[in-house]
Amino acid sequence: MSHYYRLVVSCPDRRGIVARVSGFIAGHGGSITEANQHSDLEAGRFFMRYEILADSIGMTAAELEEAFEPVAREFDMDWALRDTRRRPRVVVMVSRESHCLVDLLYRWTAGELEGDIVGVISNHDDMRSMVEWHGLPYYHVAVPADYKSAAFGEVERLVEEMEADTVVLARYMQILPPRLCERYAGRVINIHHSFLPSFAGARPYHQAHSRGVKLIGATCHYVTEELDAGPIIEQDIHRVSHCHTPQDLVRFGRDVEKAVLARGLRWHLEDRVLIHGNKTVVFA
Amino acid sequence: MSHYYRLVVSCPDRRGIVARVSGFIAGHGGSITEANQHSDLEAGRFFMRYEILADSIGMTAAELEEAFEPVAREFDMDWALRDTRRRPRVVVMVSRESHCLVDLLYRWTAGELEGDIVGVISNHDDMRSMVEWHGLPYYHVAVPADYKSAAFGEVERLVEEMEADTVVLARYMQILPPRLCERYAGRVINIHHSFLPSFAGARPYHQAHSRGVKLIGATCHYVTEELDAGPIIEQDIHRVSHCHTPQDLVRFGRDVEKAVLARGLRWHLEDRVLIHGNKTVVFA
Amino acid sequence: MSHYYRLVVSCPDRRGIVARVSGFIAGHGGSITEANQHSDLEAGRFFMRYEILADSIGMTAAELEEAFEPVAREFDMDWALRDTRRRPRVVVMVSRESHCLVDLLYRWTAGELEGDIVGVISNHDDMRSMVEWHGLPYYHVAVPADYKSAAFGEVERLVEEMEADTVVLARYMQILPPRLCERYAGRVINIHHSFLPSFAGARPYHQAHSRGVKLIGATCHYVTEELDAGPIIEQDIHRVSHCHTPQDLVRFGRDVEKAVLARGLRWHLEDRVLIHGNKTVVFA
Amino acid sequence: MSHYYRLVVSCPDRRGIVARVSGFIAGHGGSITEANQHSDLEAGRFFMRYEILADSIGMTAAELEEAFEPVAREFDMDWALRDTRRRPRVVVMVSRESHCLVDLLYRWTAGELEGDIVGVISNHDDMRSMVEWHGLPYYHVAVPADYKSAAFGEVERLVEEMEADTVVLARYMQILPPRLCERYAGRVINIHHSFLPSFAGARPYHQAHSRGVKLIGATCHYVTEELDAGPIIEQDIHRVSHCHTPQDLVRFGRDVEKAVLARGLRWHLEDRVLIHGNKTVVFA
Repeated sequence: MSHYYRLVVSCPDRRGIVARVSGFIAGHGGSITEANQHSDLEAGRFFMRYEILADSIGMTAAELEEAFEPVAREFDMDWALRDTRRRPRVVVMVSRESHCLVDLLYRWTAGELEGDIVGVISNHDDMRSMVEWHGLPYYHVAVPADYKSAAFGEVERLVEEMEADTVVLARYMQILPPRLCERYAGRVINIHHSFLPSFAGARPYHQAHSRGVKLIGATCHYVTEELDAGPIIEQDIHRVSHCHTPQDLVRFGRDVEKAVLARGLRWHLEDRVLIHGNKTVVFA
Repeated sequence: MSHYYRLVVSCPDRRGIVARVSGFIAGHGGSITEANQHSDLEAGRFFMRYEILADSIGMTAAELEEAFEPVAREFDMDWALRDTRRRPRVVVMVSRESHCLVDLLYRWTAGELEGDIVGVISNHDDMRSMVEWHGLPYYHVAVPADYKSAAFGEVERLVEEMEADTVVLARYMQILPPRLCERYAGRVINIHHSFLPSFAGARPYHQAHSRGVKLIGATCHYVTEELDAGPIIEQDIHRVSHCHTPQDLVRFGRDVEKAVLARGLRWHLEDRVLIHGNKTVVFA
Repeated sequence: MSHYYRLVVSCPDRRGIVARVSGFIAGHGGSITEANQHSDLEAGRFFMRYEILADSIGMTAAELEEAFEPVAREFDMDWALRDTRRRPRVVVMVSRESHCLVDLLYRWTAGELEGDIVGVISNHDDMRSMVEWHGLPYYHVAVPADYKSAAFGEVERLVEEMEADTVVLARYMQILPPRLCERYAGRVINIHHSFLPSFAGARPYHQAHSRGVKLIGATCHYVTEELDAGPIIEQDIHRVSHCHTPQDLVRFGRDVEKAVLARGLRWHLEDRVLIHGNKTVVFA
Repeated sequence: MSHYYRLVVSCPDRRGIVARVSGFIAGHGGSITEANQHSDLEAGRFFMRYEILADSIGMTAAELEEAFEPVAREFDMDWALRDTRRRPRVVVMVSRESHCLVDLLYRWTAGELEGDIVGVISNHDDMRSMVEWHGLPYYHVAVPADYKSAAFGEVERLVEEMEADTVVLARYMQILPPRLCERYAGRVINIHHSFLPSFAGARPYHQAHSRGVKLIGATCHYVTEELDAGPIIEQDIHRVSHCHTPQDLVRFGRDVEKAVLARGLRWHLEDRVLIHGNKTVVFA
């Protein structure tokens, strides 16, 4: 099975970046199998993502990184190089709604995700059996109102212990403390059950029902300190009508939520999502 | 060409309404070609819309109305009966963006609307030639900031003179004064260029672009005194990405706006939209 | 928890059906909570579905059936009455692809289906552990090429033994013999992985890829003797582009397939699908 | 207003193409504002499209072409360079349905198309007044069954006289003779009113209605000698149900057709569509 070196770059826009980077890769005999570029003309910033067939380059990832360093410095790049054999480790956090977790577990076992779910943390014990059936550890960390700080200390310890690259809030229903938002900035993905910025906060389907909207939605975004306000990765909607009760909206919502979260996570794990300020570039 | 008597009812929900109404119609030999019903269990309210082949009943609309009156009283109904030969008269109000008007004029001439556009009012003179080419009167009523009251007096006079049943704000870009909102309650349809309640107010595409959303939308709603807050008739969205500038969003938006407005207006003219509080029942 | 009597009718169209049926129900004090009607003007046929609050009628389902019999005869109705406490029994048949089964099992456990999965039959043994974890029996019935007749005899025996009302071919990948198609006419639901009638038969995603289509689809339909030609219940599509390999199409397809099958099955179990010739009326 | 040099390339895939091309552009000081690349791994073919700010290069398009020639030869490229100041000339052909033409005329006047409609040819005289109101010449070329060859001779003469780069069959309803298909290969765009390959040929909405499909579609494709079988540029669908008559399908279809044709034509005019065999690469 071939593996790839994946180069992701964001830098001030100027002439010659593509020529320099592609020239560098060609100079090492590299074969580019997928290339994405974007110039944000307003922000004056350039984004790129290259997938290079590892066997076409006679270097390890570490050697390639070292060789690329001067190019990166020349163009003042934020950049990363990943060997796709190094699969990201994902911790999923859930509360009582299982639809997103069930969906992610299926996609993981079906080989749809370029990464591995390594454990599940929940403030309830409901999904233990299902998770353990998949051969994964399940951690029940209750989050009582007067004990949040200790609880999130334990969550942090578990995330570290599992060496998670990415944390997915798959309908976790608890607000992460600022400390975790900051420590794992750009690495925590949440699914919010509305079409943000509509209906931020609690009970979005009931808000939507009472406003009489004709579409409900879901939003996958990075978690930041400000609730439901982080960079949006993906959104989608489902059509509703006067026939539908709030319960129907919840049911439709589950389908949108899991689809949107799965796409967002997939793109994140494939290094297709580049954050810039409060927005994302998604090379889907 | 057959015509229909269209009966639209909203009343407190209780047993036997359908039996009473359908019995009444059957008793007069009426043939029902389309029937829609909805019980709003939360609100305890019942909604129905019947389309009756006029030739199957040996009565004029006025006679049928009179005959139905006791049934309506019995169930405390808000109701209306319309002979579809009496086509609603529509006045369109526009500002400088022509996409919605062009679309509505096409649909009218193609016979897609159960009603007739009878005139266009604008605060600019830009679309006169196009409108007049369609054989319609065009009224230019400027709305200078210090002259709004007189301007809207003139708008009101024109709407009355044209005997409009429905007024469509097809990107009119001016806020109707409370007096008109009230006088024409349930008869003025607006297209707002966002997925309400997101991005109410001015420049929604710029708001959407700066929030980095992945979908933009449009909302067709009845106009009420509170800006962009009236009962929603229809909504739809268009997918966008980091590639798209605010100008692209405007362009995509035009397509969504005209589609959403055309659907909303069509349903309104076919008596498919029943208002209840700040929501609608749409028998689409 | 309230239960309902659900009345589903199809009959030659003529005046007075609604009045007669709703009058009958009102006469027994019945409260109708959901009503759907459709006149197929081309075919001259009328379809209806009523949901009646059981507690509002002082009769058992059997008594109501007997009382309704004369009405049904008068209008030459095909009809059925179901007490929603009697939940339909569903047998799922699968081959090696698990996505549809995983999805149906989730929906069943989440209470989204108005029926119960009572067992799984497969020509492979791969999904035994997952199915048994859900507390359901799993039957492995191999279908070797020279042994099909006996294998399908065994399938038929199992379906009978489990007293299945509905059989779902959730990517079963085997063609049912005519005998079973006929015996279970209108009760076997298949998911085909293309937008029928495009790409009937084998390997639809490869057919789609090689034709260069920009959308792929899935179709949920009743099984008839003619392959992939039975009455269609539901269809949906997913957008694809030149970037996507046949493997990507397979992956997107899985999402469409499970969504379309779930909707189709849900509607079938709620008696929302009425078959007429090779078409369906779906009161969704 | 800035203009661009747009370089479109298709060639056998091998290492170093991007480096060579981007190096060439950087070497001439060129600033790339949009870049798209695609490797078709099955076909072993590489596709690219670069948009270069003309002012960033001190050369005319002709000089740049000459300078690029050796690079193109080295990599055996099919290629084209276009100065975006040279706007493509579009001839639209219609029959009796006006929706696509009305839509294209609006988009042209609104500045949505990177090209100019220069004239309309029709086998009927119905749309003359509307077309002439837009300031465009209208040619009525009747196509009687026993006179087709002479009629298409006249069509060809007009297309030449108007110096058309692109011919759009906007519901033209006549089959172009092989001679024209061949002469204008890759330059004639058709809108077919079904989701091809379903329902090729005549009266697709009636075919769709009688098959009982739940979605209808439209397909924008290049015209080849084989009817409705050319490379597909774009497709989309509209949801339908048992409620809808063939007339409703026709009405919904109009909306899909014009949207799909407008997208397809827009991409074609922006050099975003690269044909390869019977498929397209669309850098949308």
